[in-house]
Amino acid sequence: MERIKPRTLSGFMELLPPRQQQMERIMAILRRTYGLYGFTPLDTPLIESSEVLLAKGGGDTEKQIYRFTKGDADLSLRFDLTVPLAKYVALHYNELVFPFRRYQIGKVYRGERAQRGRFREFYQADIDVIGDGKLDILNEAEIPAIIYETFTALGLRRFCIRVNNRKILNGFYAMLSLADKSGEIMRTVDKLDKIGAEKVRALLTDECALSPAQSDEILRFIAISGDNDTVLRALDGYAGRNEIFDAGLAELKAVTAHLAAFGVPAENFAVDLTIARGLDYYTGTVYETTLTDHPEIGSVCSGGRYDNLAEYYTDRQLPGVGISIGLTRLFYVLSEQGLLNDALPSAPADVLILPMTENVGAAASLATQLRRAGLRTQLYTEGKKFKAKMSYADKLGVPYVVFLGEDEIAKGEISCKDMSSGEQITAPLDAVAAQIKAGLARKNSGAVILEK
Amino acid sequence: MERIKPRTLSGFMELLPPRQQQMERIMAILRRTYGLYGFTPLDTPLIESSEVLLAKGGGDTEKQIYRFTKGDADLSLRFDLTVPLAKYVALHYNELVFPFRRYQIGKVYRGERAQRGRFREFYQADIDVIGDGKLDILNEAEIPAIIYETFTALGLRRFCIRVNNRKILNGFYAMLSLADKSGEIMRTVDKLDKIGAEKVRALLTDECALSPAQSDEILRFIAISGDNDTVLRALDGYAGRNEIFDAGLAELKAVTAHLAAFGVPAENFAVDLTIARGLDYYTGTVYETTLTDHPEIGSVCSGGRYDNLAEYYTDRQLPGVGISIGLTRLFYVLSEQGLLNDALPSAPADVLILPMTENVGAAASLATQLRRAGLRTQLYTEGKKFKAKMSYADKLGVPYVVFLGEDEIAKGEISCKDMSSGEQITAPLDAVAAQIKAGLARKNSGAVILEK
Repeated sequence: MERIKPRTLSGFMELLPPRQQQMERIMAILRRTYGLYGFTPLDTPLIESSEVLLAKGGGDTEKQIYRFTKGDADLSLRFDLTVPLAKYVALHYNELVFPFRRYQIGKVYRGERAQRGRFREFYQADIDVIGDGKLDILNEAEIPAIIYETFTALGLRRFCIRVNNRKILNGFYAMLSLADKSGEIMRTVDKLDKIGAEKVRALLTDECALSPAQSDEILRFIAISGDNDTVLRALDGYAGRNEIFDAGLAELKAVTAHLAAFGVPAENFAVDLTIARGLDYYTGTVYETTLTDHPEIGSVCSGGRYDNLAEYYTDRQLPGVGISIGLTRLFYVLSEQGLLNDALPSAPADVLILPMTENVGAAASLATQLRRAGLRTQLYTEGKKFKAKMSYADKLGVPYVVFLGEDEIAKGEISCKDMSSGEQITAPLDAVAAQIKAGLARKNSGAVILEK
Repeated sequence: MERIKPRTLSGFMELLPPRQQQMERIMAILRRTYGLYGFTPLDTPLIESSEVLLAKGGGDTEKQIYRFTKGDADLSLRFDLTVPLAKYVALHYNELVFPFRRYQIGKVYRGERAQRGRFREFYQADIDVIGDGKLDILNEAEIPAIIYETFTALGLRRFCIRVNNRKILNGFYAMLSLADKSGEIMRTVDKLDKIGAEKVRALLTDECALSPAQSDEILRFIAISGDNDTVLRALDGYAGRNEIFDAGLAELKAVTAHLAAFGVPAENFAVDLTIARGLDYYTGTVYETTLTDHPEIGSVCSGGRYDNLAEYYTDRQLPGVGISIGLTRLFYVLSEQGLLNDALPSAPADVLILPMTENVGAAASLATQLRRAGLRTQLYTEGKKFKAKMSYADKLGVPYVVFLGEDEIAKGEISCKDMSSGEQITAPLDAVAAQIKAGLARKNSGAVILEK
């Protein structure tokens, strides 16, 4: 028979079992944390009608979309989870309760140029709160808490949730009579981290045609930093000159007011006036999250407030606030940086039973009992030599191996070896199961991400 | 602005939040049960190169495949989880340990004719054990236990795991010198449940051109039924006439030998000689699972033994055994039949906090504490009247509402209402949290599927 060479498409992540177990741990933590904040899980189709999915029109991403026909239907794979959410909320509006809080962890597709660390199929893990007509600023204030709890639950400590407000930026540029250039200016200012203040100033004067005074004013403004009180006091100095600015400042104050009550430590939060995020979508608070030791990764959790989720589908005003984690890319980077905790058990089973007798009935029965006690148990099935069986246990990385021979069966006991310590005990099943559970609790106690 | 009418494609399941919560419960149970049996989770791309995915050639399903080009690439959406598994095992052979046990719960795509209850995007929930060169019959013997535990964990009691062995069928037809017609005969016999014995006999003589004696012999054979011992004794009467038959009978005996040890009650298991499953893929034990009260649904969990998983990709002999649950269709049918347990909480949160004061700091702080105690907590954020807030809680179906007013804050207490009983208590947080947890354990104790 002619063989086809098996391969996985470039830009598509396919993990080996131990890595996949780490990914599963991360996803379980995201589901749990998002759930703790009262978000309901959603699952929407990977495929939508192109007319619906591309209602907004393409923009930069249109070329990247996987679009095809099937019969008469013009179809596209979703490229984010926001457009499907907009469709979902508009379509099921009458059956939903607002504010509507949902999370979704799902794959999205973008046919980007293939390069290392860039994915064409990747998971996004999103939460959004959607209001009907109005949505209180308190929702924006709660978002940093969700980010904090999520990253803390994953094991991260050294990260910063950076927050800004688009109204502050828009109001500020309006004060300088630069409202019509604000988009261009924000794109330039966004390069600050990469190219430094001097080059930004040069771009502002040369390419944006600002006066040196305007450029200086902008650089002075975005340089405002320090703890929340310091930044807010500095911003107070601009108050009273522009309504939009004042509204944004009030919102920023509301967002920062309850950080401690929401459990967000000061060291994990910063007002950062350089953050703008996209240009036509966000209208209020915007968020970015950076890993302190890995600024080169960029933001690992971003989002913001928007005024009109579903304007392409409905007349209803549906304001919202949401954040998104680019999970596949984050996982890739954590893996590359060696930040995933490889000490956590990643074997398919907690216990591998090696039957040492011809008749496997007793071993099958033991497997059933261990499983009913909640232990993930594999019964070794192949008629191999003892050495080959132990080598299998080793390669699998299974934490415990249980031996069941005539002696043990006669005595009503089992023998169990802790594969990391080498320690072996022979005791009745209940005692062994209890010891295994205690050991597993220890072995599983670490976080899935380990900072160095 | 011109609006696009929002819609979801026909044949694509998109659930409202309470139903989605039920689906999540089912998926969590599948993950847990599959995990208990030592299967490792896998996640493979939705898209594969058409050359790889269609290596086997199309057959009946080729027309149904979503196939398209992107740039130069000829791509297809996966139509099952078995072909991607074959590719995965062939591609990563050197990095895997055999027997390799994996589960995968993922969406697959088939562009079938749209009709009620038929899905073009649907979840399959598969487990497979793959051997390297050989795979012991014990793996086939363990499969009924996995099916039993899975369906029991979902809440089902009245189901039957029906098992047969392809070698028994092939050997039997060889005895009748009908080996070359066995495919045709099995397809005809497969209609027994639908059209009855008389019509099957007519088809066998008219369309398959069998003699009346041969047809009678076949109908007598497939009518063999009863408990395992009875069936095996009847099959013993055919032994010694054909090697393949004898091998199949030995396998069937091995599969039934340890059912009790594997925890499968006799009433949930039957040898059923009418089961054949597909024609060119399975080579040994085959499985179907039917709901006793809903035979019209057909099999809800099927699979079997195969000798060569990845023959299109590799020379290596990779035998395996696997089963698959068509999850989306099962969920649809359960929902249609009213078998999903709507009494289980399906709200996004366990607790909804209604702040009754201007300053929401205390409420935010309470939310943080409840979440850290493990309670899924939503802080109500909107400035609405009390009645509107309670109506929101009602519509959401949230089990507990917590009120936090000046009185409670002053006394260091909170007031909590059980929304189903109407009972209300005012007590310190720890006491309330403990009571909520006890109540939730009760409310969540039922199974997700309720037989009538």
